[in-house]
Amino acid sequence: VSRFLAACRGGAVDRPPVWIMRQAGRYLPEYRVARARAGSFLALCRTPPLAAEVTLQPVRRFGFDAAIVFSDILLPLAPLGVEFAFPDEGGPRLDRPLAQPEDWDRLRPPEHGGGTAFVAETIARAVRQLPPETALIGFCGAPWTLASYLVEGGTSRDHVAARAALAAHPREFHRLLDVLADAMAVYLLQQVAAGAHAVQVFDSWALALSADTYAEFVVPALERLLRALDGTGVPRIVYASGAHLLPLLAGLPCEAVSVDWRVPLDWAGRALPGKTVQGNLDPAVLLASPDTVRVATRAMLAAAPTRGYIANLGHGILPGTPLEAVSTFVETIRGAA
Amino acid sequence: VSRFLAACRGGAVDRPPVWIMRQAGRYLPEYRVARARAGSFLALCRTPPLAAEVTLQPVRRFGFDAAIVFSDILLPLAPLGVEFAFPDEGGPRLDRPLAQPEDWDRLRPPEHGGGTAFVAETIARAVRQLPPETALIGFCGAPWTLASYLVEGGTSRDHVAARAALAAHPREFHRLLDVLADAMAVYLLQQVAAGAHAVQVFDSWALALSADTYAEFVVPALERLLRALDGTGVPRIVYASGAHLLPLLAGLPCEAVSVDWRVPLDWAGRALPGKTVQGNLDPAVLLASPDTVRVATRAMLAAAPTRGYIANLGHGILPGTPLEAVSTFVETIRGAA
Repeated sequence: VSRFLAACRGGAVDRPPVWIMRQAGRYLPEYRVARARAGSFLALCRTPPLAAEVTLQPVRRFGFDAAIVFSDILLPLAPLGVEFAFPDEGGPRLDRPLAQPEDWDRLRPPEHGGGTAFVAETIARAVRQLPPETALIGFCGAPWTLASYLVEGGTSRDHVAARAALAAHPREFHRLLDVLADAMAVYLLQQVAAGAHAVQVFDSWALALSADTYAEFVVPALERLLRALDGTGVPRIVYASGAHLLPLLAGLPCEAVSVDWRVPLDWAGRALPGKTVQGNLDPAVLLASPDTVRVATRAMLAAAPTRGYIANLGHGILPGTPLEAVSTFVETIRGAA
Repeated sequence: VSRFLAACRGGAVDRPPVWIMRQAGRYLPEYRVARARAGSFLALCRTPPLAAEVTLQPVRRFGFDAAIVFSDILLPLAPLGVEFAFPDEGGPRLDRPLAQPEDWDRLRPPEHGGGTAFVAETIARAVRQLPPETALIGFCGAPWTLASYLVEGGTSRDHVAARAALAAHPREFHRLLDVLADAMAVYLLQQVAAGAHAVQVFDSWALALSADTYAEFVVPALERLLRALDGTGVPRIVYASGAHLLPLLAGLPCEAVSVDWRVPLDWAGRALPGKTVQGNLDPAVLLASPDTVRVATRAMLAAAPTRGYIANLGHGILPGTPLEAVSTFVETIRGAA
């Protein structure tokens, strides 16, 4: 069993496994070559040989213990009838946001697996090329995070429109979250069937919500999504920010929780008994000197649980991160054997 | 003693005092008249008769237990040599962000009280016109929040440049925070001398930082700022988001902590023994129906501490909030007598 999968299940490992959220795109020169070859970000995601290639790039360069399939959380919304644009500048955008309950009703439940076969094929290709000890992680967006993208029509600073829609239309919002949970459940199962060894659910915008709202709206949808993987034996990781949500995340049917840089790892470990903790270096630290990276990484490791721990950043790696900083991060963790 | 000041000090009150962050500007039609008369936001802030008038507007309309002086946290940076622009569209902006330590060295410690006399005059005028039972709150930005504005050159979604600057230049960043703390200490003392009955320090971007970074960098600067008011007898309120920071806020020399909508009030109350808690309705709820506002406000009150509690929103009121929603919020709190 790989070091990564052992740590997901709380087993003993010789040293903490390490990988970095998220894809190669943000920092690798070899990625930019593949991206240029594909012509656009979307074309790259949808061309399995190229997507598999960039999935493997970070592992080849840094020897990570896991790779995450190259894709985007918004792509599986296309089969539901929602096509985001991915302009070269700025975040993904939707021409007509789904602002109102009547817009949500227009979401078409997709054929099972329909419209996302390219992700399955990318996974199958990547798994064949990965070293056997390296895990391949499939992923999807969490229902609330996807709902926010739909209602806001893109990335939002404070998710006011989504929060207001939830407050104004609680029943319809529940239904929206259920539709998204069901679609993502099928999508994750498709990825596992194609060979993914673990899955991660990104609730990137969890931090926007109160604990009460999260408990009432999001937790049931997350449970619905996660339970679809019951019995597959594949570890489930949930990424979410916010110390106020830890007591709720502790109750989710998942093996691991990925926390951001805000909460100290020892706090997270105590708040998540029986679960593996993943994280949590502030990606901004990787913009500083190697010495600073080394000191901060050691401090992270010192606060980490001794069992059930996966080293990672607390959020996606930032554009412009120097490769040397990533090496220093990885080497410091390897030195912690 | 006013209901508001009694609650600041944890005393018994007949019902929770209530006011709303932040100024009239976001939702009152009478504000828009005054704003048009002044010509610009900055001119309005810097014309004491008009600024005092809009300070009083929310109290006149809703009978709040406190008014907050109409101003902006970035204005007291002008005497340090930093002039933000306030365009009609979008947030405040700085043409040349103070991105590097050498930029921070250029900050001029202001003459004591120099360049902000218009705020003192606004306070003195507003206090004279307020009903005697209504408190006047002075305010300033917290050192970290101001530092983020300086480094980012405006509002930022994730404060990456500021976080990176802090990681890369820890010693210089400490000094920057100290300079800002000292300038804001003088500024708050000036406001108290002019008649402010309480002060609030807005650490609006606290949530961007880890608990460790907050403890090492921000807490000492906040203490330096807050201690300058020791002996004045004026209650100090600190606004900051993030459940992970509550244990640190609990140790600050302040009488009250204003929390956002994320943390349930009973959690906040437990985490802040001996301190008054202020907050925390999600402002997005005020965009929903009166019934929704009523239910959510009652839930907030049910979770609030019985002593040492000030009703408020968990963040600034949103543009476009209907007046009816504010009335419903206030009436529900009054009904909780």
